Amino acid sequence: MSGETTASSGDGRVVALCGGVGGAKLALGLQTVLGERLHVVVNMADDFEHLGLHISPDLDTVLYTLSGLSDRQRGWGRADESWNFMAALAEVGGETWFSLGDRDLALHVERTRRLAAGESLTGIAADIAKRLGLTAQLWPVTDDPIRTIVVTPDEKLAFQRYFVAHRCEPAIRSIRFDGADKARLSAGVRAALQPEGLRMVVICPSNPYLSIDPILAVPGLRDAVRVAGVPVVAVSPLVGGQAVKGPTRKIMDELGVAADTEAIAAHYRGLIDGLVIDAGDAVGARAVDLPTCAVPTLMTDDASKVRLAQDVLAFGDALCGSTSVR
Amino acid sequence: MSGETTASSGDGRVVALCGGVGGAKLALGLQTVLGERLHVVVNMADDFEHLGLHISPDLDTVLYTLSGLSDRQRGWGRADESWNFMAALAEVGGETWFSLGDRDLALHVERTRRLAAGESLTGIAADIAKRLGLTAQLWPVTDDPIRTIVVTPDEKLAFQRYFVAHRCEPAIRSIRFDGADKARLSAGVRAALQPEGLRMVVICPSNPYLSIDPILAVPGLRDAVRVAGVPVVAVSPLVGGQAVKGPTRKIMDELGVAADTEAIAAHYRGLIDGLVIDAGDAVGARAVDLPTCAVPTLMTDDASKVRLAQDVLAFGDALCGSTSVR
Repeated sequence: MSGETTASSGDGRVVALCGGVGGAKLALGLQTVLGERLHVVVNMADDFEHLGLHISPDLDTVLYTLSGLSDRQRGWGRADESWNFMAALAEVGGETWFSLGDRDLALHVERTRRLAAGESLTGIAADIAKRLGLTAQLWPVTDDPIRTIVVTPDEKLAFQRYFVAHRCEPAIRSIRFDGADKARLSAGVRAALQPEGLRMVVICPSNPYLSIDPILAVPGLRDAVRVAGVPVVAVSPLVGGQAVKGPTRKIMDELGVAADTEAIAAHYRGLIDGLVIDAGDAVGARAVDLPTCAVPTLMTDDASKVRLAQDVLAFGDALCGSTSVR
Repeated sequence: MSGETTASSGDGRVVALCGGVGGAKLALGLQTVLGERLHVVVNMADDFEHLGLHISPDLDTVLYTLSGLSDRQRGWGRADESWNFMAALAEVGGETWFSLGDRDLALHVERTRRLAAGESLTGIAADIAKRLGLTAQLWPVTDDPIRTIVVTPDEKLAFQRYFVAHRCEPAIRSIRFDGADKARLSAGVRAALQPEGLRMVVICPSNPYLSIDPILAVPGLRDAVRVAGVPVVAVSPLVGGQAVKGPTRKIMDELGVAADTEAIAAHYRGLIDGLVIDAGDAVGARAVDLPTCAVPTLMTDDASKVRLAQDVLAFGDALCGSTSVR
């Protein structure tokens, strides 16, 4: 880990709200800059039961990314992965629509065992993060079950069915987060968002509708962010009006939202103080009624992740005392 | 498959009682000779829950052996196995005393899932046996839980703890089969042992104390064998007074039993009509009060498995009409 401190960084905690791949890249940049001062709050609404195992796709993507174990080419799962379990599962007639690597499987089996033994997702995540060498703190947004349901013209699909089995092909009419109304913000998230010692909140460039909204849907989270009184900065997931990866752009089209900076700003209105957008989106974007910061947001290597993290932190720090749109 | 029929074979069913490795070798020889006329009744008292998974060591050894998937060098598990799951499990702090290969794991995960969905061990075993191409019928002796407990001078050990974690090192004072008194013989075993069309019963050269006794402990099994009225032949697991593999010899010493042919005969007295012993044990063995057949019993390749199977079947057929010791 290099760059634990930079000229512009303070001593305070930074809380990042994060989904899977795109968000995790910025989280890695932030971890490089902030180390243990980074607290990553992760979406748990993609979680599902499969083959009797509890699978937490976004949490594991963040775990693997921040520990350096992730496969950067494939975009999900672990590097140096093997697939012999899946091949043997097919032989005995098991469900193979969701790929589980041999190494990755260990995390699911062990977490499922510990959950059955009465441990919390939060406690297990903290322990495994430590074992895998993360310096950042990792917080499932809640220990209670939230499940994203995608409503299509034909049916209601559990998220992984939509995302993996149907490869995001069905049009989305609406998205709901079953269980969100009863979910309790986990104690770690509540503590991380305490005003004292908090520097800023960053919304990572994850899918706003599928990854960030189910975090924001947990009762108490928006209030805790508001009460904290620190700058809240979102990073747009769009680069040139397109999503780098995943169905963000397609979903915006299906929901009748223009895929541009203003739509992202409007989506987070009332919550954020500033929006980081890609330098390529700055020209021609519709007017946005809050401070923006246009920098290269495409994260192709570790250096670009650190650079974006530094830009986001500098922008957030500069927003202190600026007119809030909230 | 060659040798589906031989000069001496009849059309009747043969029921083989079988534990793990040694027994499975003879079962493979018998399957080669008998095909679908072979019914293998398997010990389930080694089963245990590990990492939240239901593991059936003897059933899986028989499955892998009869399907040609077994690792013949290692003596357990699958050939072409990889161990990436175990390596990753260690990274996240999981229990690693019991080795689970990546391919092998698929069977445990899928069986556990199907059990949780309400299927029986018998139904799952039949389906998987078919998928893996077994021609023999495979029957867990019971769908109810039986668990072997090894009583040592210091403690009571669940079987896999004794066998794997303690590598059979503690001396055995006694062995008990928890749950055996309440276990119900599975319907498939009951049907296989119906007198009509039954040719003989073979007790495979598995450990009499740890693998065959917990089969015989299921209420109704001994009676069903007796009522069937067909020859019952046991194959001694000893070769030159030693077990080929596993702790049979050590256990006989600890239980104060001489490790010889007569001890095996005495152990099965009242149940068997004849005993197949290794040609090397014939000389110098104490007198045995029932018919014996001395042939090479060491199964080093497929040909020797088939040859022993043919010898056992011929011996059993010849016992028809001989004086029974029962």
